[in-house]
Amino acid sequence: MPLDPVDFCTRLVAEMPDAVVYADAAGAIRFWNRGAERIFGFTAAEALGASLDLIIPETLRARHWAGYAETMRTGTSRYGAGDLLSVPALRKDGTRISVAFTIVAFRDASGRMEGIAAVMRDVTAGFNELRALRQEVAALRAKPS
Amino acid sequence: MPLDPVDFCTRLVAEMPDAVVYADAAGAIRFWNRGAERIFGFTAAEALGASLDLIIPETLRARHWAGYAETMRTGTSRYGAGDLLSVPALRKDGTRISVAFTIVAFRDASGRMEGIAAVMRDVTAGFNELRALRQEVAALRAKPS
Repeated sequence: MPLDPVDFCTRLVAEMPDAVVYADAAGAIRFWNRGAERIFGFTAAEALGASLDLIIPETLRARHWAGYAETMRTGTSRYGAGDLLSVPALRKDGTRISVAFTIVAFRDASGRMEGIAAVMRDVTAGFNELRALRQEVAALRAKPS
Repeated sequence: MPLDPVDFCTRLVAEMPDAVVYADAAGAIRFWNRGAERIFGFTAAEALGASLDLIIPETLRARHWAGYAETMRTGTSRYGAGDLLSVPALRKDGTRISVAFTIVAFRDASGRMEGIAAVMRDVTAGFNELRALRQEVAALRAKPS
């Protein structure tokens, strides 16, 4: 490998188009890469220290934090195995997008959970196409023939 | 942040469920994380040093390498801006999957391209559902009513 593996990982995370967001046990944002700036529209300066509520639609916050607390308690999540689930998220400009994400649990040396990282992609276009096609199939099936 | 940003990036890339694969200018695999092992079924020992042909269906190799050479020459790619395109890929067990990927170009200190990293997700389920719905819509529209 031409570059050191540690340099590789650092540059990859800094430059990848996917959003990488790390939040601590209290749900405060502690890492926010360029991909997160691109996808959500908030700069790192705006996001760091803020609550994840920054990008969570208001109606989904209660459910989000229940799942977050559970993951912080157990270190496991239904998102942990690489299953891709789409959830709604908010951009700075107020538009609602769909993001598909995977997560990584971070523990300290004693094994205590200290935070959760998420790798997120904007899958709004695919999500909308899927929903439109499902609606069209339902409408076509319902049509009297 | 409880952990050092460099440690964070290194642990994230090692543990994330997404596949992270880096190939050098010649197209040889030089980095293969646990997510790549999970998604493609090859261990790092099997993948490191091998050609990317390991995971590219035979009929797509010519097109892949033309695009690869172009990206190595110019440092840019239609995949670079975070657009998510699905491409077919091969698992070790011979099954064909769909992967959505983003890429990051790596240059040396003089600006010369030295390799390309890809972050890949297995989106086979969503891809198949989309295809099935498109076919169903086409069939329902064609039905005489």
